[in-house]
Amino acid sequence: MKIILADSAGFCFGVKRATNLAFDAADEYPNICSLGPIIHSPQVVKTLEEKGVRVIRKVEDIDRGAVIIRSHGITAEELDIIHERNLKIVDATCPFVKKAQDYATKLCNEGYSVVLVGEKDHPEVQGIISYTRGGEVFVVADCKEAQRLPSRPKLGVVAQTTQSFKNLQQVSDVCLGKSKEVRIFNTICDATSVRQNEARKIAREADLMLVVGGFNSANTTRLAQICQEIQPKTFHVETAEQIKEAWFSGVESVGITAGASTPRWIIDQVVERVSAMSK
Amino acid sequence: MKIILADSAGFCFGVKRATNLAFDAADEYPNICSLGPIIHSPQVVKTLEEKGVRVIRKVEDIDRGAVIIRSHGITAEELDIIHERNLKIVDATCPFVKKAQDYATKLCNEGYSVVLVGEKDHPEVQGIISYTRGGEVFVVADCKEAQRLPSRPKLGVVAQTTQSFKNLQQVSDVCLGKSKEVRIFNTICDATSVRQNEARKIAREADLMLVVGGFNSANTTRLAQICQEIQPKTFHVETAEQIKEAWFSGVESVGITAGASTPRWIIDQVVERVSAMSK
Repeated sequence: MKIILADSAGFCFGVKRATNLAFDAADEYPNICSLGPIIHSPQVVKTLEEKGVRVIRKVEDIDRGAVIIRSHGITAEELDIIHERNLKIVDATCPFVKKAQDYATKLCNEGYSVVLVGEKDHPEVQGIISYTRGGEVFVVADCKEAQRLPSRPKLGVVAQTTQSFKNLQQVSDVCLGKSKEVRIFNTICDATSVRQNEARKIAREADLMLVVGGFNSANTTRLAQICQEIQPKTFHVETAEQIKEAWFSGVESVGITAGASTPRWIIDQVVERVSAMSK
Repeated sequence: MKIILADSAGFCFGVKRATNLAFDAADEYPNICSLGPIIHSPQVVKTLEEKGVRVIRKVEDIDRGAVIIRSHGITAEELDIIHERNLKIVDATCPFVKKAQDYATKLCNEGYSVVLVGEKDHPEVQGIISYTRGGEVFVVADCKEAQRLPSRPKLGVVAQTTQSFKNLQQVSDVCLGKSKEVRIFNTICDATSVRQNEARKIAREADLMLVVGGFNSANTTRLAQICQEIQPKTFHVETAEQIKEAWFSGVESVGITAGASTPRWIIDQVVERVSAMSK
């Protein structure tokens, strides 16, 4: 069987950085936790737990030691509590998310009403809103929702880092009809679209697609959907053990990709397992 | 014959203001000229000439007295010469054009490369460029031209005041693919689109359309084109005398509109002439 492994499979820049910071911090601090799972990979979270990094859901439950801020950031209010309690901070917020937070805050400070393109309930979006400290922020999922925006003298537009460029463009278009001044910061990280485009290409060539990553990872689930639309024989697995030999009958080429929070070692195990079956 | 006269026929805000300023100045200053025709209405220009306002093409040819700056403005270099020669200035630049000049300059001063949506050779566009004093300004007519723009860290977008909103939107869309920050000032004056939309409506109802205005007026010529596409019996006239009775055989309703530089008295004469023919 021929194996086509995506170059863009696995950790994006921000996740790689967060994971490295977390492993380093595990060695450095005897009393350490992460506020929520550091990334959406149960395997990485489990390995970190074995090294002493507990996952705590609410900041109010942390009273001492060090705390790791996960890649999609936390809210300003959570950060306030961390400061009040004099906890040691390991800030693994993705630098692209940080930029989106900074631009939204800058826009509010300069008198813009902010339009944030993204999902209302996503922690990244909640974080971005919180740093504007009560500035006027409208979260819109798409141009349809943007059409319901009120008119404002100055509109500033930022996006959740995983949004599609087309969506940002369409929302910005609508905003131009709502304000005499529209200032757009393209805060989208293109790792997502690069990974999706490569997955599409491979899914067209392969007889079967394996998409590796946490079942709780939104970007991996979306990646699997995209592949499935092109290659119905697409399987979303978390680990190599979940792969079934029966899937491969009559299959000559296998495409493999992985979500942004899938560690290298899991991808390697998947490749190894598929190679072994070929023999 | 029923006459349908457009509410938006004739002088826009900027032209009305410029004309009033010119007539007042003609009374005030014994030695006065305008730099280029004050508006694109030969009749208004002729009346002003009779009151002593000479039309001078080149600023170098004015050595004393007062000079009227016409509604679409002049270049920074021309203004420098006027200042050097200590000429008295009557600034009839349309306030909307002034805003476009100011925003382009502000954007350049704040480090943006400017994309100016408009016609390269139009005096308004030449004026806007000049006030940036050597800033980076790209003039693009439409999104096709915008696609050839280079990438820049910050792009600022302004428009010639008579551009269509759709064109500004399409160019802005393309700019978003060229820069991580795009700041758009919608400097379009909606007088043009309001007048065009009303003309379309009337052209659909009337058996014949009269479009009144200078043959050298771009906006009047465009207005006549728009009407002609809907009502082939459309006539572009400069004065009431040019109207021919033969046009009206079998006509029951006449629509009348006029360009932004057409004075009220000429519109009134046209209405009068058509009314007289009805009797």
